[in-house]
Amino acid sequence: MSEPDNTLTAPRYGGLATDLYQLTMAAGYHANGRHERASFEMFVRRLPENRSFLLAAGLEQALGYLRHLSFNQDEIAYLRSLPVFAHVSREFFDYLSEFRFTGDVWAMPEGTVAFPGEPLLRVTAPLIEAQIVETFLLSTINFQTMIASKAARVVEAANGRGVIEFGARRAHGMGAGIYAARAAFIGGCIGTSNVEAGYLFGLPVYGTAGHSWTLAFEKEMDAFRAYHQVFPESTTLLLDTYDTLQAARLATEFGLQLRGVRLDSGDISALAKQVRAILDEAGMTETRILASNDLDEFKIADLLAAGAPVDLFGVGTELSTSRDAPALGGVYKLVEVEFPDRVEPKMKLSREKATYPYRKQVWRNRDAEGKFANDIIAMAAETEQHGEPLLKAVMRAGQLLETPPTLREIQQHAKQQLAALPTQYKTIRDAKSYPVRFSDHLFEQRMQLMKQLEQS
Amino acid sequence: MSEPDNTLTAPRYGGLATDLYQLTMAAGYHANGRHERASFEMFVRRLPENRSFLLAAGLEQALGYLRHLSFNQDEIAYLRSLPVFAHVSREFFDYLSEFRFTGDVWAMPEGTVAFPGEPLLRVTAPLIEAQIVETFLLSTINFQTMIASKAARVVEAANGRGVIEFGARRAHGMGAGIYAARAAFIGGCIGTSNVEAGYLFGLPVYGTAGHSWTLAFEKEMDAFRAYHQVFPESTTLLLDTYDTLQAARLATEFGLQLRGVRLDSGDISALAKQVRAILDEAGMTETRILASNDLDEFKIADLLAAGAPVDLFGVGTELSTSRDAPALGGVYKLVEVEFPDRVEPKMKLSREKATYPYRKQVWRNRDAEGKFANDIIAMAAETEQHGEPLLKAVMRAGQLLETPPTLREIQQHAKQQLAALPTQYKTIRDAKSYPVRFSDHLFEQRMQLMKQLEQS
Repeated sequence: MSEPDNTLTAPRYGGLATDLYQLTMAAGYHANGRHERASFEMFVRRLPENRSFLLAAGLEQALGYLRHLSFNQDEIAYLRSLPVFAHVSREFFDYLSEFRFTGDVWAMPEGTVAFPGEPLLRVTAPLIEAQIVETFLLSTINFQTMIASKAARVVEAANGRGVIEFGARRAHGMGAGIYAARAAFIGGCIGTSNVEAGYLFGLPVYGTAGHSWTLAFEKEMDAFRAYHQVFPESTTLLLDTYDTLQAARLATEFGLQLRGVRLDSGDISALAKQVRAILDEAGMTETRILASNDLDEFKIADLLAAGAPVDLFGVGTELSTSRDAPALGGVYKLVEVEFPDRVEPKMKLSREKATYPYRKQVWRNRDAEGKFANDIIAMAAETEQHGEPLLKAVMRAGQLLETPPTLREIQQHAKQQLAALPTQYKTIRDAKSYPVRFSDHLFEQRMQLMKQLEQS
Repeated sequence: MSEPDNTLTAPRYGGLATDLYQLTMAAGYHANGRHERASFEMFVRRLPENRSFLLAAGLEQALGYLRHLSFNQDEIAYLRSLPVFAHVSREFFDYLSEFRFTGDVWAMPEGTVAFPGEPLLRVTAPLIEAQIVETFLLSTINFQTMIASKAARVVEAANGRGVIEFGARRAHGMGAGIYAARAAFIGGCIGTSNVEAGYLFGLPVYGTAGHSWTLAFEKEMDAFRAYHQVFPESTTLLLDTYDTLQAARLATEFGLQLRGVRLDSGDISALAKQVRAILDEAGMTETRILASNDLDEFKIADLLAAGAPVDLFGVGTELSTSRDAPALGGVYKLVEVEFPDRVEPKMKLSREKATYPYRKQVWRNRDAEGKFANDIIAMAAETEQHGEPLLKAVMRAGQLLETPPTLREIQQHAKQQLAALPTQYKTIRDAKSYPVRFSDHLFEQRMQLMKQLEQS
């Protein structure tokens, strides 16, 4: 079978982009001849603070990583130089030099609304392969899912007004900023200020001018005129370098030609009303007001509730770091091992961290109006159809099964998903908990296994 | 002059790794023939929650970026395709195709203790160059400084016990995880679980085994024996897959050969005491206990206060995302423009966001015992010596002035800095605010400029 698409965003890291214990376990499995196929599932145990749903994201980068994963000779020489590998046989390093990911992957498409306990992704592969990839898959999907989920809240609060991702300077390094821009778009943002993200992913890019532009000219009006001359159709003037209302009055000189103005400090609600009045009085009813300055979904909701005439929101730090809940605790757990003669279900019993064994499918049920009603997590092997299956086969034997969707398609899917999620489960404050349960069969099978393990 | 070192960690991104408005402003400066040299300074306005000091980090990556910054033809073609650049002349894109950073940089060496208001870095370069680099410099230095500062707190709480950075899976993508590992080492961690970070930066790497290893074997003891056989000198057994105390009793079979055990769930303090007793009774007094599970500086301090016999701490999410304060608000502000006939100081007047004009130096004074007593932020042009100058020239005309220090040298510098910071300013709870003031001269000059600007 020829692969449908080889143009996934290439990962920038090779086989060493993982935790050391993945590689020592790999050496251990290798030394013990443990090449059985194993299944691991990634899921989130609990929703982060303020969240009532997740929006799955990061799959394309995860698949790109799996497609290209390998160890070059320098990387292998580095591993061999580590004291911990002193007693590991040469055969293991030979194995690594030929390493490719040959497994199968099932996953929720990016932009799917998901909940705690539900596998977002399942890997079935020889034990070593499935183990080594854990760290990268978690880091990628945890991060993008966290940002897409945050973006969906911010966009919900903006209630139809455009939200632009502005957070590159506060994201956790440039790489984080770029993938935050991607995930924010999935969550419903209209674009980003990050040009690299625009270039890599075809995202719409937006910008205004900075305070330094205004400061670089002797008079504020000189700065405004000079900018407008170079960007006659796309100037958004930043008003708060010296005095916002005075700057708004200067802005009226441009009349209908001025695309927008930006407020970046002070009492945004009061200033937006005053600036809107100044612009309207000059007949500039089409000139849009963009607001920024540490905005988040709560501040945006408050601004709109106060009637602030803001047309666009630039959201940086709070979005690109998911500041109120800056870590998503997704985990990747062994659920089955396939021996020649049997399939063994696996689960952890650790207090607070016990897991559910067996490969699973997530089923979603809708009400009469097509809205999401409840989800059921069942064993993949169950023949009963519990609704609409959310996990799809995306990779088989290390090859992609389908051309991945474009980012616009993903954003569209996310919009449909969010539209189908009843309001009570997505309000930014006091949302209700969406009903998710395990199938009776899975529940019983797990009880049996627990008993067995506790007796042994 | 030949450059001392060309081996800085190469940046992975080119000229597009910036906010769109930097590039539109660049086009605007170009169209207006604005090629004066300008000085921008990066500083943090306020300390994040729970923090009482910053530990500067990220300079090496910032300098690596500046050294290699350029725009390739694909990147330029992309920019030209954007509607916003429709009216920008071809000359600007020709300029970008030849673009190199030719400016000067002054900075606090990595590992220096710093405080709000103090410039961590100053760029003096032609206006366009200094503008374009803002986003990358902020993103890199904000992030690594945030993590190094957090790590210093965690290490302080561990009070001499080793702290290992374990956060790759929860960091904001793999890139963030790698640079978090670097910054955590600067802050005093003894190493990381992140192999790529070990490989790139020569950091010590650490690991144990995962729950999946134990689950992959039929009996827990089979798993323990198999691992120890492959790693006889460096096995740390993970005890909490099924029953921690039972696993600890199994671990005694390895006697003195067992390097360590790891606790990753439950009541760590109680379990550590029980496990220590089991090990000691078996004569395994040298076998170390490593604890993990969402640890931070507060939990570590509480564990040690409760007498938990933990030898090593694995700290992941809380450290690698700086979860309690996940964004550092460093800003980069224009302070001077050099015209042929004069140097113009620059400042913003925006409420809450007003800045200090003029290029500055930060001076540190010590008390009789060599401990830090107070800092003074003065104009760089002041002839008076206010103490020990913290900002050093690191780049001139785009070339490095010195071979950058190694990470071990940086960590050593940070240790000396932290040792010289009096305890009252670095306790993890209720630390006092370290005294920093502006020089009288700078204060007066700023007042004069404010008056001027408000009158104009």
